[in-house]
Amino acid sequence: MVNLLSLSDLSLDEIDGILNRAQQILDMKERGWFAPKQTLVANLFFEPSTRTRFSFETAEKRLGFHVLNFSSQASSTQKGESLYDTVRTMQAIGAQAVVVRHRREGYYRELMRGIGIPVLNAGDGAGDHPTQALLDLLTLRQEFLLFKGLTVAIIGDLRYSRVARSDANVLSRLGCRVLLSGPEAWKNDSLPGDYVTVDEAVRAADAVIMLRIQHERHEQAMKMTKEAYHCRYGLTRERAAVMHPGSIIMHPGPINRGVELDGDLVESGRSRYFKQIGNGVAVRMASLEWALRIKKEAEENDRVAEKW
Amino acid sequence: MVNLLSLSDLSLDEIDGILNRAQQILDMKERGWFAPKQTLVANLFFEPSTRTRFSFETAEKRLGFHVLNFSSQASSTQKGESLYDTVRTMQAIGAQAVVVRHRREGYYRELMRGIGIPVLNAGDGAGDHPTQALLDLLTLRQEFLLFKGLTVAIIGDLRYSRVARSDANVLSRLGCRVLLSGPEAWKNDSLPGDYVTVDEAVRAADAVIMLRIQHERHEQAMKMTKEAYHCRYGLTRERAAVMHPGSIIMHPGPINRGVELDGDLVESGRSRYFKQIGNGVAVRMASLEWALRIKKEAEENDRVAEKW
Amino acid sequence: MVNLLSLSDLSLDEIDGILNRAQQILDMKERGWFAPKQTLVANLFFEPSTRTRFSFETAEKRLGFHVLNFSSQASSTQKGESLYDTVRTMQAIGAQAVVVRHRREGYYRELMRGIGIPVLNAGDGAGDHPTQALLDLLTLRQEFLLFKGLTVAIIGDLRYSRVARSDANVLSRLGCRVLLSGPEAWKNDSLPGDYVTVDEAVRAADAVIMLRIQHERHEQAMKMTKEAYHCRYGLTRERAAVMHPGSIIMHPGPINRGVELDGDLVESGRSRYFKQIGNGVAVRMASLEWALRIKKEAEENDRVAEKW
Repeated sequence: MVNLLSLSDLSLDEIDGILNRAQQILDMKERGWFAPKQTLVANLFFEPSTRTRFSFETAEKRLGFHVLNFSSQASSTQKGESLYDTVRTMQAIGAQAVVVRHRREGYYRELMRGIGIPVLNAGDGAGDHPTQALLDLLTLRQEFLLFKGLTVAIIGDLRYSRVARSDANVLSRLGCRVLLSGPEAWKNDSLPGDYVTVDEAVRAADAVIMLRIQHERHEQAMKMTKEAYHCRYGLTRERAAVMHPGSIIMHPGPINRGVELDGDLVESGRSRYFKQIGNGVAVRMASLEWALRIKKEAEENDRVAEKW
Repeated sequence: MVNLLSLSDLSLDEIDGILNRAQQILDMKERGWFAPKQTLVANLFFEPSTRTRFSFETAEKRLGFHVLNFSSQASSTQKGESLYDTVRTMQAIGAQAVVVRHRREGYYRELMRGIGIPVLNAGDGAGDHPTQALLDLLTLRQEFLLFKGLTVAIIGDLRYSRVARSDANVLSRLGCRVLLSGPEAWKNDSLPGDYVTVDEAVRAADAVIMLRIQHERHEQAMKMTKEAYHCRYGLTRERAAVMHPGSIIMHPGPINRGVELDGDLVESGRSRYFKQIGNGVAVRMASLEWALRIKKEAEENDRVAEKW
Repeated sequence: MVNLLSLSDLSLDEIDGILNRAQQILDMKERGWFAPKQTLVANLFFEPSTRTRFSFETAEKRLGFHVLNFSSQASSTQKGESLYDTVRTMQAIGAQAVVVRHRREGYYRELMRGIGIPVLNAGDGAGDHPTQALLDLLTLRQEFLLFKGLTVAIIGDLRYSRVARSDANVLSRLGCRVLLSGPEAWKNDSLPGDYVTVDEAVRAADAVIMLRIQHERHEQAMKMTKEAYHCRYGLTRERAAVMHPGSIIMHPGPINRGVELDGDLVESGRSRYFKQIGNGVAVRMASLEWALRIKKEAEENDRVAEKW
């Protein structure tokens, strides 16, 4: 079964194919709305989410799919069913793919056997967030055309951000130079890239990705005020002023304005914040198409194999 | 950008146009279901709602729109994003209009700059509820054809009811005589109209609008029992018996039967309670069409202007 | 008004008709997806539910209906509206049927007057769960073709399970031999059937229906460990080993693996667990069609009667 769990499982060719299709969708008139299909997709969100859930839901509706939405709140008294059984139930009800967000890193390992439909990972704890990485790649490619030789700075909560992990890994594979920066306590040795100061990172980068502080994953409250964080590790107006021409600012959202990023920079000419969100719908459409196409091809191969 | 925030922003001609269209929709076979469109609308409800949310959702679906539903519960851990950023995110995802209900009066003031899609106000604290006022107008017009010279009594929680405010203001502009009544402590000097006793109001009115007690907005619990309230300020069977021929009873819902209104009166011949709800879907369809049409016209004018 | 509240209200012919239609839907290519219709259905769930709600929602979408979803959580501050008023509101908004789950047994009695659209019961406290019984019947019929002479064991929480009640009653009417078993304290004298030991029940049965323990309805916590329950009253691998050839295992879900049922048995060749879920969508499609068809016929008869 094909899944989209981490970009590490995809070849660079596969990633390139998804990005091409997403760009093609964006270039369509009306940004791509397709005829209604007899396809049912279930969104299973066990962690709160606004943008990712609505982005996937919009992607599904534009593809002409029917959508079932499940959120952890509505299932708080969920009677103790395992994630495996919930996904199998969705499959039995008729879902042809599931999109899952879950607090538990690697939640999908328990789904590797027995599930007959693609699982698209919409975030697993501090693990991965592959469609966020894809939309970041698309945003970078729209700007710079080539990844090779780009310098991308990833700044902030490197320890708990799944975006940092997904982005750093795939950018390295694509030949980007990855600069990492942020509070000493949040260093993460598993990430590929070079640690530098925030000022060095901002000055050198073609693209600066400011990470959201993952308050909900930290065991203890941050010991700094928001103002102190902004001043020491945030993208202040002063820091942004020394960014080199043509460089851009990105953020996975939701933004804490004035903390990770000066509020006015969000709407500035360098910011690609809202463009990233629009790109998110397109890469999710392309990802769903990709997973369902490979599933269909596999089923057809099975049928041909049976005949012989 | 055109918005529907308060009827005060609309001319009487614009209001008339929306009511005409709503009535036209009601007169259609099947009460108006339109072909699917490539239009996405997001409903953002930061306060609990049943009837208004489902009424808007139904209106959107009958118009052939795709719908995203966001409710405060599902975003309780909403990671501190501002309303402005949430609405901008919905726009970036592809929403072509947003419907917003929020506890904060005048929440929409922070949306006046930078948002490129219409905002339809589904209730702002004790502020306004323009589509409720529109459905009340439609209900009155179906009954009496003309507003001029009508006597409308608005009775109950005048202090915290956004329905009272929206209704009193637009009815005054339309030439109705507005009578106000209710507990002394809930008087509201900002409303146009004459204060009279409940008995006087009911006896004189062509239409009696009984308001729901806004328990959730009062800082302290009501000092009366429900029975005492009903007896002193409610529409009892005895009071209803002296209403003049042809007069009607209205209520924005949800009803506390036996408090604001005797339970049996809800289903009586004078009651337009359920008719109001049906009218609500039609005025919301007409309102959405109106906002999206003006937006489209503005965009086309911009394009023409650019060519010259 | 026709409703689906309890199978006791339906003749065996009506039940047979619904099952035939459900099987017909399952035999269609693509398992039955119908053209979009101008039909609105509201799902009102006042108790948490995953599988039943998504099963109904999928059924409605496959029938081409538009869906409104209401769950108790989103209406926690539901401003005290009665169930009757909520359903009447849905009708006024334009819903042509409502699906209701409610904690209160027999909640539907307050809906018997004044509601003009069909009510489909998705579970009333420890009362009934007619569509679950229908999907159990369909599963049995697919396996054994005839009900007459079948031996069906229903094991576990007989006291609080609405599935037990709905199943035992209709299976008796259909000429099945019903065997009942479980903890002494959970005996339920209102159920038709013969009490036997778990071992006897399992050995004699053509189909074993293991019930979920309704923790949420018990006034006090179970005095046994899960392991002890499994050992004394659950379907262990040892017990399953003595089931006779061709016999099957069923469970209404969600399963507590290792309690009511050994986890591995769920995926075993005897298990019809996931097949039941798929059958659920089909019987709900057939049930909705049935209720709406009878409503339409009644309306047409009224119109003809008026002409005479």
